[in-house]
Amino acid sequence: MFGFERIATARGARSGRLTLPHGEVRTPAFMPVGTQGTVKGLAPDELSRAGAQIILGNTYHLHLRPGEDVVRELGGLHRFTTWPRSILTDSGGFQVFSLESMRTVTDDGVTFRSHIDGSRRFISPERAVEIQWALGPDIAMAFDHVIPGEADRATAADALDRTIRWLQRCLHRHTTLADEAPGTQTLWPIVQGGTFDDLRQSAVSAVRDLGDWTGVAIGGLAVGEGKEKTLRVLDGLAPTLPEGIPRYLMGVGFPEDLLRSIARGVDLFDCVVPTRNGRHGTAFTRDGPVILRNAAHRVDDAPIDRECDCEVCGRFSRAYLICDTCSSQASHWGSAWSRFTMSGF
Amino acid sequence: MFGFERIATARGARSGRLTLPHGEVRTPAFMPVGTQGTVKGLAPDELSRAGAQIILGNTYHLHLRPGEDVVRELGGLHRFTTWPRSILTDSGGFQVFSLESMRTVTDDGVTFRSHIDGSRRFISPERAVEIQWALGPDIAMAFDHVIPGEADRATAADALDRTIRWLQRCLHRHTTLADEAPGTQTLWPIVQGGTFDDLRQSAVSAVRDLGDWTGVAIGGLAVGEGKEKTLRVLDGLAPTLPEGIPRYLMGVGFPEDLLRSIARGVDLFDCVVPTRNGRHGTAFTRDGPVILRNAAHRVDDAPIDRECDCEVCGRFSRAYLICDTCSSQASHWGSAWSRFTMSGF
Repeated sequence: MFGFERIATARGARSGRLTLPHGEVRTPAFMPVGTQGTVKGLAPDELSRAGAQIILGNTYHLHLRPGEDVVRELGGLHRFTTWPRSILTDSGGFQVFSLESMRTVTDDGVTFRSHIDGSRRFISPERAVEIQWALGPDIAMAFDHVIPGEADRATAADALDRTIRWLQRCLHRHTTLADEAPGTQTLWPIVQGGTFDDLRQSAVSAVRDLGDWTGVAIGGLAVGEGKEKTLRVLDGLAPTLPEGIPRYLMGVGFPEDLLRSIARGVDLFDCVVPTRNGRHGTAFTRDGPVILRNAAHRVDDAPIDRECDCEVCGRFSRAYLICDTCSSQASHWGSAWSRFTMSGF
Repeated sequence: MFGFERIATARGARSGRLTLPHGEVRTPAFMPVGTQGTVKGLAPDELSRAGAQIILGNTYHLHLRPGEDVVRELGGLHRFTTWPRSILTDSGGFQVFSLESMRTVTDDGVTFRSHIDGSRRFISPERAVEIQWALGPDIAMAFDHVIPGEADRATAADALDRTIRWLQRCLHRHTTLADEAPGTQTLWPIVQGGTFDDLRQSAVSAVRDLGDWTGVAIGGLAVGEGKEKTLRVLDGLAPTLPEGIPRYLMGVGFPEDLLRSIARGVDLFDCVVPTRNGRHGTAFTRDGPVILRNAAHRVDDAPIDRECDCEVCGRFSRAYLICDTCSSQASHWGSAWSRFTMSGF
């Protein structure tokens, strides 16, 4: 049910085929973010036609609204959203740790207040796994301790230790649940360690020691440490990761960052940038970003990208898209994105 | 190019076929509002599949952004938006008169300030016709003096006189332009007169005297006078309108108001209500409005309307649609709407 086949490699970059319960994902691949199971502005069919093979759902947001019990009762994320292809959910760690003043961390887990109604909530590694089990994605992520990019060594080491202890608990809970319905969901670990090469190395070792994973994520990068540091860490990290499983760099989404990361052996990405920027009128093209609101595009009959064969570029002018603030733009961007990651390599 | 055939009548209500340069419109029909040529949240294909036969574009908004010169340069509204079916543009009168403190009315026309950048603008009857000619809809509306629903008799009489004088000027300008490209655009007059039956009668007479129209609009209703007064005015007005042309009641869109107006011989409607409410989570169904955010729908696996055969009702649960704040909802509402007006009669 879960497999990864490398089709080709070149100077560290890889092209592959990831097999999941809801179909195959050709990598390198970009996952559009569907916060509550829906990519804003796009119906599931538009998303498919835009070339998305797998989308990401946010456990934190789905937990708060509509709640994992609702999603489970309505048949899980796939049935609930009618999205037929693969889904990965994050663990909620990133969102919970972004709440800053609204959360308390202990080894048990994180107590936080909902950004919606201020209600007090608690997520432990076990709860994160259970919530994702209720949601029913193809890939669930381990609950990790995320720290800012500029965190010092002691903070990074402490967070990494906790992340590894939590990973053991996630795996334990996941294994119990998966025994009851094998082949429906896989759990991926997250390599932390801040910007410190030795910590990253010990994270990789600890993760490897814990089991045979079907994929591995790189977390805690692109979180404020600066692009040079991101690449430097990636340079040291990538060669040490298991070769036979996909590597997912979390939260990366700018075109140049995708290409640089693909060149360093990364296979999967997610980011809100392409769809959010799309909704606000910025498109990424082969020739760089196009900011539709610029006066130059007011009478611009050209498509966003002349070489793009997506529905939006085949049909709408830049001048028109300034007026259409919703689906068409998001649709196009998603498209440009997935094709970009497919063809960029 | 412009024709109207009554297919059936029953107790004052009519079913008909309106022929326009971009196709046929089966009436009674509801026109979704595409402010700047796009119905928010819906791609043109979704709009077609939702059953929309004709959409309304706002001259005021299109004049300010992107500007009629841009639309003309890019081939007119149909080419610009890629919407292949019929389009009606309002004249901008309603929006300009809604600006209240930001406008000055003289017999020449209306000077106003743009709500976008505060720039000083002027629209005369001739300009309103010229702007619409540049936009290129199938149906253009005359520029009228719109007053609040509770206006007194003197105000209503004064505004009506001006509306008729302006109608002559609109017709004159339109005729000159249409001589150069006959059969591409028709102009419809607007009957004003506030809530005063005799003024409405004299408006109808004046409009009839001015020419052979291909359609006629009823303006200045549903603008705050209260629903009982709306219906009373309609009761007096409808029997005096020409029978062989479509009657368009401007700005009406609640289901019960559509049915009551259809029963009084109205053929066409427009309103932002179905799409705007849709985007905010309220749907109108055969069983009344469904407010999706109500707690009752949190785990509701039912479609918005069990008897509706639109794409959205065939696919998505109420619980899911709460999470999807954009295209799916708007899409459905539009659909429910157009089917409602088609089947409600």
